Amino acid sequence: MKISVAQLNYHIGNFARNKELILSAIKKAKSEGAELIIFSELCIPGYPPLDLLDRLDFIEKCNQTVKEIAAECIGIAAIVGCPTVNKNPEGKKLFNSALVLSEGNIIFTANKALLPTYDIFDEYRYFEPERQFSVFSFKGLKLAITICEDLWDEQPFDNEFEKARLYTVSPMEELAKQNPDILINISASPFSYTKIEAKESIFRLKATKYKIPVISVNQTGANTELIFDGASLIINSKGEIYDQLPFFEEAVNTYSFDKIISDNIVNKATRPEIVQLIHKALITGIRDYFSKTGLKSCIIGLSGGIDSAICLCLATEALGNENVRALLMPSRYSSDHSVNDAVTLAETLDVKYDIVNIEKAFCAFENVLSPLFTGKKADVTEENIQARVRAVLLMAVSNKYGNILLNTSNKSEAAVGYGTLYGDMAGGLSVIGDVYKTDIYRLAKYINRNSEIIPENIIKKLPSAELRPGQLDSDSLPDYSVLDAILYQYIELQKPASRIIKEGSDRETVLKVIRMIDFNEYKRYQAPPVLRISSKAFGAGRRMPLVARY
Amino acid sequence: MKISVAQLNYHIGNFARNKELILSAIKKAKSEGAELIIFSELCIPGYPPLDLLDRLDFIEKCNQTVKEIAAECIGIAAIVGCPTVNKNPEGKKLFNSALVLSEGNIIFTANKALLPTYDIFDEYRYFEPERQFSVFSFKGLKLAITICEDLWDEQPFDNEFEKARLYTVSPMEELAKQNPDILINISASPFSYTKIEAKESIFRLKATKYKIPVISVNQTGANTELIFDGASLIINSKGEIYDQLPFFEEAVNTYSFDKIISDNIVNKATRPEIVQLIHKALITGIRDYFSKTGLKSCIIGLSGGIDSAICLCLATEALGNENVRALLMPSRYSSDHSVNDAVTLAETLDVKYDIVNIEKAFCAFENVLSPLFTGKKADVTEENIQARVRAVLLMAVSNKYGNILLNTSNKSEAAVGYGTLYGDMAGGLSVIGDVYKTDIYRLAKYINRNSEIIPENIIKKLPSAELRPGQLDSDSLPDYSVLDAILYQYIELQKPASRIIKEGSDRETVLKVIRMIDFNEYKRYQAPPVLRISSKAFGAGRRMPLVARY
Repeated sequence: MKISVAQLNYHIGNFARNKELILSAIKKAKSEGAELIIFSELCIPGYPPLDLLDRLDFIEKCNQTVKEIAAECIGIAAIVGCPTVNKNPEGKKLFNSALVLSEGNIIFTANKALLPTYDIFDEYRYFEPERQFSVFSFKGLKLAITICEDLWDEQPFDNEFEKARLYTVSPMEELAKQNPDILINISASPFSYTKIEAKESIFRLKATKYKIPVISVNQTGANTELIFDGASLIINSKGEIYDQLPFFEEAVNTYSFDKIISDNIVNKATRPEIVQLIHKALITGIRDYFSKTGLKSCIIGLSGGIDSAICLCLATEALGNENVRALLMPSRYSSDHSVNDAVTLAETLDVKYDIVNIEKAFCAFENVLSPLFTGKKADVTEENIQARVRAVLLMAVSNKYGNILLNTSNKSEAAVGYGTLYGDMAGGLSVIGDVYKTDIYRLAKYINRNSEIIPENIIKKLPSAELRPGQLDSDSLPDYSVLDAILYQYIELQKPASRIIKEGSDRETVLKVIRMIDFNEYKRYQAPPVLRISSKAFGAGRRMPLVARY
Repeated sequence: MKISVAQLNYHIGNFARNKELILSAIKKAKSEGAELIIFSELCIPGYPPLDLLDRLDFIEKCNQTVKEIAAECIGIAAIVGCPTVNKNPEGKKLFNSALVLSEGNIIFTANKALLPTYDIFDEYRYFEPERQFSVFSFKGLKLAITICEDLWDEQPFDNEFEKARLYTVSPMEELAKQNPDILINISASPFSYTKIEAKESIFRLKATKYKIPVISVNQTGANTELIFDGASLIINSKGEIYDQLPFFEEAVNTYSFDKIISDNIVNKATRPEIVQLIHKALITGIRDYFSKTGLKSCIIGLSGGIDSAICLCLATEALGNENVRALLMPSRYSSDHSVNDAVTLAETLDVKYDIVNIEKAFCAFENVLSPLFTGKKADVTEENIQARVRAVLLMAVSNKYGNILLNTSNKSEAAVGYGTLYGDMAGGLSVIGDVYKTDIYRLAKYINRNSEIIPENIIKKLPSAELRPGQLDSDSLPDYSVLDAILYQYIELQKPASRIIKEGSDRETVLKVIRMIDFNEYKRYQAPPVLRISSKAFGAGRRMPLVARY
């Protein structure tokens, strides 16, 4: 039997588009002789639909789309992911289901049992967990159909306080009793640069344990902050990777079940480098934010520093130079090289740019505020006014021309609150808000891998906000290498301060950094959505109380 | 036996404060001859601790605090709410527990079985549900100890698509088999003006069904956006309200179990009017945001309109007039009466105010942007610049003097995106972001119940943003009474557009309003936390995808 794997880029709630994608994949699969095609989790509505799942009309549209697709499954069966109504009088109103469609009908339903409800996942908010399991017999093969987390009954967590066994049920243990011939897993698993190997090994271990091949089908593309890497896996019964679909790209591939079973394969798949994946993830994130909202063009405030430079490069690659606009907004504290470096970059990328000096607007504020500030010294207030004047200018161009403002704050800054609310924290989408400063430099090196796109001067200069004379980031913050190491332990690994200190970091520095992180929750609460590349990004996956003391 | 009920205002993560509150209540209870005192759900860490529950050191502090309190429970037992570690190798790492403390020990533990995971609740994110139930025998009485949602196995939802029976277990059905003498429910149940009766009837029905008294203990006070109304209930076995603790106030009351059982009571409790409760809720929300963050003073942009007027009144009552500062920022489009009315209000409330005309700063922006805007007509860009200039001024005073900016947008505006991001949408806390415009007028009437605090002129004038000549809200929006009715059906009741139209609203208006709501998710994503008074506020309880099409 030939089986097709469809790794596609769905748009939440855009049923017409999702249907079209699915039907054209079915057509391709049939042309390649497949009898079964597998799509990813909740592909009908797109993932994650969030609280749209609370709307009855949304679920009715899901049902209608499934019917229309089933009618096209002639001579081929399709496994699609879709919410279905829980008909029991008790429990959550929906199941997260895998439906097998064939000849106009739903011929089998498997519901998700393990509902991830941590980090960015909220599945128990919507779905009832399944408690019964059965394999599906199809053309002489017994299929164990599972949905994403169903295979993650054992998983490594970055936070050591979490249990490896988060659930009291193991769907695959139950299904194994019915001797399946193949394990199918439909998923919607977002990219995290630390989870690539963990993901592979989950699937490989299941193949080895149950001695059957595993086909895991992920979606690709981005929906707001979540970026799905695709990288769907076909694993043979020895636990070897038989094939892997591309990272961050759509693909519909067809495989012979007999060959997966019998062929000896050499694992040809060479995994791209991490920095390359992060680069592609961020470009995917920008591209899909714009394409899925129907927006075309962006604007970026270009300071002459490395963060905005990286964002300009990423945006240009994602949207095309003709859709990117830069605004240079020097102040009395800007160094000449800042403007020159920014101009060089904009010209190298062939991006339209304007230079607007903020002095006049800044002075106007100083002037009207002077009666209120009599006898007060200049402090962070004046620094923030500069940052906010820039935001007003950027948003004015954004409003006038429809260019969406991209935010250029990095994760290290966002963590310690080194940024101005309604100033440089503004924007529709945060491009690098999940990238630590030390990784920003890695990205710069990668972007310059073939030629100097980002001027070396931008990469080499000492980081500065240029909001007062001679200001350097290092005046207020530890070295970024020290800072980022602490941040990673506190944010991603969720280690207590005492443990971070014990393991070798300087006590005063750790306590200071953690105080800054905790104190600045209120700023991050109002930050734009952040493209997520790590296992713990700021935003929906990290929910901290604002008025707590801890 | 005498039983005390302690309705207190906890601070998340502030273990020293929470312990002190609890110990002083224990002292009072003992002095009143109580043998048992009941505190509310998760009172040790404060509710909701959110992702602090992911931190091992946080849980260790909870344990330590419990030990210290247990040591003080001499001659009295205390029921406290606390997270406890799930020692099973499988499942979530914590339970949401009720612990009975006595003579230095934990003598009984009941874990929560029904974990609300909808709206603002995320309990399955942290907790394993309990599956076994037993009553606790104490001094000859069998206590059925339950935790909040445990009694909500049947509940009415505003969204008709939800099931009334959200869970497949009924803890009280299980406990009833062991013939308890009294039902105790410790809760952390936030205020919603539509849920007051529903809450009471849940408890009254349980009392009637199992023919035993019910003591329900809620917390009071606010933690960021969630405001807890207290209003703890003592219900006799006939389902009558024997006593109710005050709304939004701390109280420690002691009751004789025999009297609850035997006394015929006339229900004296007259429930305050809804508008009075909303008023008190918002004041509590402001007061606790400041007191718990250690902040003292606020600043409000006073426009001469009703929204900022209401916020100024609420802030003054919450923080004292000496801690409130107002900024009047007229523009070329401001009417004389706007400034006069604002001045009158500030003077009536004896609040310090300054007048800063935004003309100069606005002109500076027009000026520097003119080369970029050549040939472009004035549009919403220029309106937004005015709103953003005001935000820069407010934040400058905020930064210079440490006054926190209170946001004055109402729910109707926030719903349809009638506001400027980084402009009038700025602020540390949204005071009335969950209050519809039509309810704003009710609040104004209530505030003026004894004397004219808010000038009648402010209440009577037609709503206007005053961002262009002669502008009125009604130019862009339906009448607020029409708008609010549609918003309520779509947001709170989650009715599909087709249903709202079918039930009598104008088709074009409904579709237009819903388009505006959906389109503006991106703005609300960056809004400040909103004091929640309804069953569906913007913020953490409403999670919509930003790039969806639906």
